[in-house]
Amino acid sequence: MERNVYLTLQRPEDARQLWFSRLSEFVQGPGSEVVPLEKAAHRVLSQPAVALRSSPAFHGAAMDGIAVRAESTFSASPRQPLTLEIDKDAFWINTGQPLPKGCDAIIMVEDVQVDESGKKVTTEKAAFPWQHVRKLGEDIVATEILLAPGVEIGAYELGALAAAGVLKPQVFRRAKVAVIPTGNEIVALSKAKDEDLESGRVLPEFNSLVLSTLIRDAGGEVDERPITPDDPDALSQAICAAASDGADVVVLIAGSSAGSRDFTAEAIRRLGEVLVHGVAVMPGKPAMLGLVKVDGRTLPVMGAPGYPVSAIIAVEEFLLPLLAFWQKRRPKTRESVDVVACTPLPSRPGMEERIRVRLGIVGETCFAVPLPRGAGTVTSLSRADAIIPVARDCEGVDAGVPVRAELLRSRSQIAGSLLIIGSHDNTLELIDSLLRQVEPRFSLTSAHVGSLGGLLALKRGQCHLAGSHLLDEESGIYNRSAIREHLKGVPVMLVHLAQREQGFVVMPGNPKGIKDVSDLVRDDVSFINRQRGSGTRVLLEYELKRKGIRPEKIRGYRDEEYTHMNVAAAVLSGRADTGLGVRAAAFALHLDFVPLGTEEYDLVIPKAFAEDERIQTLLTVIRSQVFREKVTAMGGYDVSRSGEILWTYDGQE
Amino acid sequence: MERNVYLTLQRPEDARQLWFSRLSEFVQGPGSEVVPLEKAAHRVLSQPAVALRSSPAFHGAAMDGIAVRAESTFSASPRQPLTLEIDKDAFWINTGQPLPKGCDAIIMVEDVQVDESGKKVTTEKAAFPWQHVRKLGEDIVATEILLAPGVEIGAYELGALAAAGVLKPQVFRRAKVAVIPTGNEIVALSKAKDEDLESGRVLPEFNSLVLSTLIRDAGGEVDERPITPDDPDALSQAICAAASDGADVVVLIAGSSAGSRDFTAEAIRRLGEVLVHGVAVMPGKPAMLGLVKVDGRTLPVMGAPGYPVSAIIAVEEFLLPLLAFWQKRRPKTRESVDVVACTPLPSRPGMEERIRVRLGIVGETCFAVPLPRGAGTVTSLSRADAIIPVARDCEGVDAGVPVRAELLRSRSQIAGSLLIIGSHDNTLELIDSLLRQVEPRFSLTSAHVGSLGGLLALKRGQCHLAGSHLLDEESGIYNRSAIREHLKGVPVMLVHLAQREQGFVVMPGNPKGIKDVSDLVRDDVSFINRQRGSGTRVLLEYELKRKGIRPEKIRGYRDEEYTHMNVAAAVLSGRADTGLGVRAAAFALHLDFVPLGTEEYDLVIPKAFAEDERIQTLLTVIRSQVFREKVTAMGGYDVSRSGEILWTYDGQE
Repeated sequence: MERNVYLTLQRPEDARQLWFSRLSEFVQGPGSEVVPLEKAAHRVLSQPAVALRSSPAFHGAAMDGIAVRAESTFSASPRQPLTLEIDKDAFWINTGQPLPKGCDAIIMVEDVQVDESGKKVTTEKAAFPWQHVRKLGEDIVATEILLAPGVEIGAYELGALAAAGVLKPQVFRRAKVAVIPTGNEIVALSKAKDEDLESGRVLPEFNSLVLSTLIRDAGGEVDERPITPDDPDALSQAICAAASDGADVVVLIAGSSAGSRDFTAEAIRRLGEVLVHGVAVMPGKPAMLGLVKVDGRTLPVMGAPGYPVSAIIAVEEFLLPLLAFWQKRRPKTRESVDVVACTPLPSRPGMEERIRVRLGIVGETCFAVPLPRGAGTVTSLSRADAIIPVARDCEGVDAGVPVRAELLRSRSQIAGSLLIIGSHDNTLELIDSLLRQVEPRFSLTSAHVGSLGGLLALKRGQCHLAGSHLLDEESGIYNRSAIREHLKGVPVMLVHLAQREQGFVVMPGNPKGIKDVSDLVRDDVSFINRQRGSGTRVLLEYELKRKGIRPEKIRGYRDEEYTHMNVAAAVLSGRADTGLGVRAAAFALHLDFVPLGTEEYDLVIPKAFAEDERIQTLLTVIRSQVFREKVTAMGGYDVSRSGEILWTYDGQE
Repeated sequence: MERNVYLTLQRPEDARQLWFSRLSEFVQGPGSEVVPLEKAAHRVLSQPAVALRSSPAFHGAAMDGIAVRAESTFSASPRQPLTLEIDKDAFWINTGQPLPKGCDAIIMVEDVQVDESGKKVTTEKAAFPWQHVRKLGEDIVATEILLAPGVEIGAYELGALAAAGVLKPQVFRRAKVAVIPTGNEIVALSKAKDEDLESGRVLPEFNSLVLSTLIRDAGGEVDERPITPDDPDALSQAICAAASDGADVVVLIAGSSAGSRDFTAEAIRRLGEVLVHGVAVMPGKPAMLGLVKVDGRTLPVMGAPGYPVSAIIAVEEFLLPLLAFWQKRRPKTRESVDVVACTPLPSRPGMEERIRVRLGIVGETCFAVPLPRGAGTVTSLSRADAIIPVARDCEGVDAGVPVRAELLRSRSQIAGSLLIIGSHDNTLELIDSLLRQVEPRFSLTSAHVGSLGGLLALKRGQCHLAGSHLLDEESGIYNRSAIREHLKGVPVMLVHLAQREQGFVVMPGNPKGIKDVSDLVRDDVSFINRQRGSGTRVLLEYELKRKGIRPEKIRGYRDEEYTHMNVAAAVLSGRADTGLGVRAAAFALHLDFVPLGTEEYDLVIPKAFAEDERIQTLLTVIRSQVFREKVTAMGGYDVSRSGEILWTYDGQE
């Protein structure tokens, strides 16, 4: 099995600079064009926009009233009103109309009296010269530079250009980006059949849709090319065809890695040269940058990795800056804020990393909760509020120390978000949806670290509330003893969310005949566990102890998942025969469920936030009829007492 | 002459609330629809997006290598390498492919040795279960809520939806907004002829282009309707026709004021009711909100004022929030920052105001310089960096006190901007353009308050540099004595920008035969002056004194403009026979010029900023050949010594 070998990994900024500097030698770029103003929205000026007309183009009335020569009114006063003859000394005029010759002021209609004939008007107020007049050139004087090159033409700029008579601005041509998905087993998204996807026979191709959207949003034009198989000849031909169709730059998706079927490097080398193969950024490492020559024309080409997050980051790091570079403007940058990581975020020295995080502002501090790091985890971007770029020369981010994060959402959106840390429950996403529908300013951001982790985060002031279902083995009561133990000094209210059924998730028909925890030690039964500190794990340990079963007897006891849904998925896939989870998880994936008992899932809310508008709205949501109906439909829940305040703790006891 | 009368001016938030609450009673809004994912970019989810597939859909390889059953490799170690038979104990696998049945781990290709036959591989490393495997559901588990309603589908969200098999998301339908320009004298922008515009016979109609862009950017669909004359019948018919063509909301541009030709209120009243006529916000006051009933369907209608800034603000205050309201999401808000006004910004109590400002960050403070306030001054938006919303219950903004401003540009753009305050010179916009072309991160923001005002701003630390041409009457030397007088304690460098010709701007052929300052006192000569503290005004005063001429003898001496170009425009329009300005201004407007003398225009740069990268780049620009060529072409400049450091001042002397 042959393999390519990565060239030395280059730092992203070095790779970019190398590509741009080689490009500049050989490639003209898309150049500029003239467009009618009606089509100019969101285009970028390539030349200074010079005013062709003045605005206003004449001295005009700024009010409805009469136009006069100011000098002729200087004698007017309340004691000595002045009478003017219409169409001789004074002229009716409406806002925007040009001043009649000889006039240099407007008297507002409110300040004049019309006589019965309608031919004469009287005023008690003298007009000063240029009163209520919009003077020629007041806004724009012809020939002045109105807007600088590199400026994007938004609505306001359209107004300025129109007012200045610039009806055909010169703008940068949109770069034409050919996007070529590659791979033998991928199929277009709309053609992928469920059964083929589930068996892994085919993979759905959606990187091209995602990358095309990024490119269009950055002002590029996309030429979506057909899927090309893993074959150097086919890839070279695809690049040539795209170039012949006028591409300014070609992006090949997947095949840029160093695997045995990664032929992008080979294809580029046949037509030109590979400048960069591999960059020191995670995700995004397998990115490739090069130049090819087709029909005597040199053009840049990029290999984007196949994993969606890598592909996105590679395009954001290299292609979008190229589009900006061609327009002589800086790439759009994200606003950044100081955030504090709730947990240490280790990172490999020598590699930059882009850690996706969710954010919540608790008190004065913006806390960051990391999302999964995998390059295939596309939801780590769709769920992210921000990205923490970790520099290559460090070993990661320490917990509790401020670090810069690049925002993916507006500050106000993040300010409206409630951060819940703790146990996972399937109703949390539903609460988020309902909360947003009730009050669009608000949302619920949840991070799943288990019940105990939630209480500890609350103690450290890192979240607004925690979700917990910790059973006290002695009393059989949920959460109270854990709160007393871990939340000293933090007065909280314990708000009931739901009673939910916990039990064994099993394949349909329960083929292994699981009945209770004693079945877990059977040789023919494999188990999938939940992580330490989760309420479900506590429940399991309680049950095992009660029955005198030693955990090390259970096959798979050390194989852990973090959510009910992932436990159910593990069972569905045959990775394990069973695991402990809520009925709703089994129900959602059409699995069977063997009840073990009912448990209480509560929200722990510091009294300091009790009056917070977001918390109040959340309580309204969980007490609502629509919430109860939707949760009941999920199966295995009793939400008849949702929102009830079960207990308040003064932090002292 | 009849006039409508404004109803009581309503507070914007009250007006919005009234409109929305009445709307909700009668109007369904655009509703939702299902769109293919390929067309879903930038649409807004109307329902929670629920995952239809898990991602990954199977256990797959996360690396290239061999798939094994982990248990079978536990004995492998460097001392005791393990040999596995291909296609029996181990299976070649590429990243992304599904694990063969029975396998639960991947050993990376780097960690295996292939024997000569190619049928056996040896490894020194044991695999742990699920090593290098992307497990089914690791990213997404089918049935989970992926994205909440109200979320805009961007590139990342497209990736998540595609991965989860949500190929037909349910989104809010785009609201169809009918935009009807009204007025007798307006003509479509593309049809307006220069001579008609200059005479004021017609006005170019461009509000519809600007408002349509705002509407599309906010996710609306625009139906651009024909221009409708000022006539209640025609207006009613136009509303009905737009409604019949499926409009969700109708916007009439102009005619919402209280003038004699403002028939929007009348037209709306014939079809329904006017809820709001006039709001307490400047610009934007004449906005109108109502409901009409057409063909049994009730729909909202809005009257936008005719002045461009008013029209924009009215649409931003009422229509865009309506589009957001229909999508159950919060309107896009602008980021806001604390800024400090350089000068007091008075405001009328009882009215909110939206003051457009330019910004510059000097030291730690973001300073705001106001732009013109007129509702017709569309460049006050295109040039603005931010808007300061002044509340109705105050008399404006005090200088030096922090106040919130809503950003129109990114913080990083503002951070890259140099703020120059002082005298106006036509080369400043050129420097801005060249600076941006050399380094897209940088720009030059200029505010024109005259030379003296610039030095005082520099003294107060409100700008990065000042532009000055202050003549010392005694020595005949420029700027140095003024710097000594006004910049005690502020060490600066004096950098030469240009020698420029000052003189009298006159109509072509100099019909009044202006030769020198003594002509200004002639009865048949009217003059346009520059503001106090401007270098040009100082020069004039110097010349008058030298000739023993009393300023009060000059007609128009108290009529002031703030820039050379506005002086030239005043002459061109016949408002004055002459004014003092630079040759380039006369040249630009094809006017004649009677030289009075040559003066020196310099940049005053605090030594504290001498090493600032932006200042260094600016110096590179003004020393460049391209700058010299372009300025020389403007006429009346000598830039042979541009960029020379003339003098340094230690702040002590």
